Amino acid sequence: MEGGLLMKDKEEVARLERWPIIALLTDFGTQDHYVACMKAAILAVTSKVQILDITHDIPSHDLLSGAFTLKSVFPFFPYYTIFVAVVDPGVGTKRRPLLVVTENYYFIGPDNGIFSFVYEDERVTTVYDIDSTHYYRPQVSPTFHGRDIFAPCAGWLAKGVESENFGTPITNYGRIPIPKPEFSEKTITAMILHVDKFGNLITNLKGADLQQVMSKAGSKSFTATVAGKAAQGPVATYGGAASELFALVGSTGYVEIAANQKSARNILQVTRGAQVKFQLA
Amino acid sequence: MEGGLLMKDKEEVARLERWPIIALLTDFGTQDHYVACMKAAILAVTSKVQILDITHDIPSHDLLSGAFTLKSVFPFFPYYTIFVAVVDPGVGTKRRPLLVVTENYYFIGPDNGIFSFVYEDERVTTVYDIDSTHYYRPQVSPTFHGRDIFAPCAGWLAKGVESENFGTPITNYGRIPIPKPEFSEKTITAMILHVDKFGNLITNLKGADLQQVMSKAGSKSFTATVAGKAAQGPVATYGGAASELFALVGSTGYVEIAANQKSARNILQVTRGAQVKFQLA
Amino acid sequence: MEGGLLMKDKEEVARLERWPIIALLTDFGTQDHYVACMKAAILAVTSKVQILDITHDIPSHDLLSGAFTLKSVFPFFPYYTIFVAVVDPGVGTKRRPLLVVTENYYFIGPDNGIFSFVYEDERVTTVYDIDSTHYYRPQVSPTFHGRDIFAPCAGWLAKGVESENFGTPITNYGRIPIPKPEFSEKTITAMILHVDKFGNLITNLKGADLQQVMSKAGSKSFTATVAGKAAQGPVATYGGAASELFALVGSTGYVEIAANQKSARNILQVTRGAQVKFQLA
Repeated sequence: MEGGLLMKDKEEVARLERWPIIALLTDFGTQDHYVACMKAAILAVTSKVQILDITHDIPSHDLLSGAFTLKSVFPFFPYYTIFVAVVDPGVGTKRRPLLVVTENYYFIGPDNGIFSFVYEDERVTTVYDIDSTHYYRPQVSPTFHGRDIFAPCAGWLAKGVESENFGTPITNYGRIPIPKPEFSEKTITAMILHVDKFGNLITNLKGADLQQVMSKAGSKSFTATVAGKAAQGPVATYGGAASELFALVGSTGYVEIAANQKSARNILQVTRGAQVKFQLA
Repeated sequence: MEGGLLMKDKEEVARLERWPIIALLTDFGTQDHYVACMKAAILAVTSKVQILDITHDIPSHDLLSGAFTLKSVFPFFPYYTIFVAVVDPGVGTKRRPLLVVTENYYFIGPDNGIFSFVYEDERVTTVYDIDSTHYYRPQVSPTFHGRDIFAPCAGWLAKGVESENFGTPITNYGRIPIPKPEFSEKTITAMILHVDKFGNLITNLKGADLQQVMSKAGSKSFTATVAGKAAQGPVATYGGAASELFALVGSTGYVEIAANQKSARNILQVTRGAQVKFQLA
Repeated sequence: MEGGLLMKDKEEVARLERWPIIALLTDFGTQDHYVACMKAAILAVTSKVQILDITHDIPSHDLLSGAFTLKSVFPFFPYYTIFVAVVDPGVGTKRRPLLVVTENYYFIGPDNGIFSFVYEDERVTTVYDIDSTHYYRPQVSPTFHGRDIFAPCAGWLAKGVESENFGTPITNYGRIPIPKPEFSEKTITAMILHVDKFGNLITNLKGADLQQVMSKAGSKSFTATVAGKAAQGPVATYGGAASELFALVGSTGYVEIAANQKSARNILQVTRGAQVKFQLA
């Protein structure tokens, strides 16, 4: 059984003279001691490590939001970054702790679908059920695996323990359903997958897919209807539209409904899950 | 006069090849420049240091909340971590700046009780009134000792200045009253000490104390009453209860009132300070 | 054409044995993937770097707030710190990306006035329009220059690329109007420039200017009127006043209206932009 990456990893990291990077994503918020407990648990194992926050403001227990946010950021990190993602409503139950080794990265977290987009976007090498309990903290609280299992395992991985030592390879890891748009010749039915801080509405329609459909249909523009209101598209930038609401291919590669220097969410009063209907011209 | 730890510290840190760790806890929030000013003031002294945030979202001036959050995280950090805790309603008055040296850690902050749990949980070696003003920033604002006193002193300590150089040992440092549960044979009267991001209600009753009382009384279960509603206990995990509200020993070691994937705070409409009555079966 | 600092910089940083520091200020919030994308883009260029957050909670598109917050913190950082400030309502339009080299620091961000206070407070060496696109990420999203231009350029600068390589020196960079107080013999008309987390109201009146006017007028005290209510001043510390509302020279060097352990904002129900009238006694 071959974890695959780690020897290359060690040499590469050594060549780069860099400290391993551990990036954290949770729904723990930043008001409590939880996130710092995880960082402390990593540092207690190894301190030559760069620990970064992705975000800790995932809505409580919202796996889809956590999975999407992770997807939106992980490909920009250097190779061999270790991601620890803890949105974990089933903490303390039988759900397994996972180490996912892909061609480029490591992912550590619960087996509850939080890595669903990773399985789509990355070439997975091996997924381990982390059952080697000696990499856990000596006492494991049934309600805080972030501190007692995931963080220390990330620390040991960063310190150079081979991935195959962490547990048993599995193939039946879990996924959550990722809602996909429905395509017909001149219409696409999509939904809002994420609402960002600016009130931009990120849909589940990939810009590349939209372009392909438009090209096939010979369309140069479209109208996206959300909550009974129309957004024109495509425009290139937030500042580039004539209409109040407009649609553009955002920085995640997905189509967004936006409003120039205003919040599309506030104008439309919608949240994640709302339908967006694209009608090609 | 012997600070005690620092020579061992230096050797240990050198052996670990790690940079000193400074962990910050304040009520400054993250919207303003205050926290970054503290980090800048540390880095201006020494930059081979790992600076970590515990939280900056302690409610303004809330010493008990700050003290409890610090208590909940510090024991998970590696030895010799330097904690800087600034919840400081008396900034600019006569209250002293402190360096608390314990068997395992350093704590820097105002002498206002913010370290009350530290004095309970750690073996204190020496407490210094930081009156060696040459470790301060040259100009000290009367309203921002975090930037002008605490942060630079943490920087100098991280850089290797012996703790005894920072000031005068004192023994009359201040504490805040820490509310304790009242025990009788089959009932315990506790209170809510902290409400976390998930709405879990952390009480001031230690799990170990509860277990001892239950064992003595021959009880296997109990009912905890908060705001007129009953929570059954003990359960092992957030997902492990039949009833809507339940009680479990949380990851801090204290008994929590929780609701599976819901907010116990929202269900009960209570805040810190509310009474929790445990009736053993 | 001479960038000026960088050789000295390299030697100095080498002498200090420190990693370059990159400090980030944005209006991106912390709930989304945006800030972590910027950090990832830096680390993809160079990982021997210390990345710090100033804040990401600047109100969306609020240039004055971003500029003021940057001003309040940058002088406390060590020399040669690289600041990346992205409040960028015009992202994707013709506004230029800038590298501002001053006597002490580097500043990277959009040419929209975000550095207006920097131009006032620092001796500017050279301002570059970053038109050397090979330091950008290979694909530049029109809506996320933070990730695709500013962050990687900060990475390359930290890695040792000379500032003059980033683009073309310019002198017609933009500024936003910075509101200044109006002075007469015994009155000063100022405004609230920033409201902090505690509800302290930071005005645009410098403490030094107030002292000069008071000294000239032979005044030892004053009354500041905001929203029809009077604040007495000057006091030395938040805890040092007899009246509910009072005025003091805050840690930024500007006069603040404050209330002891209370929020002046809540008492006065005012926001940024509100007038403050100082009447000298």
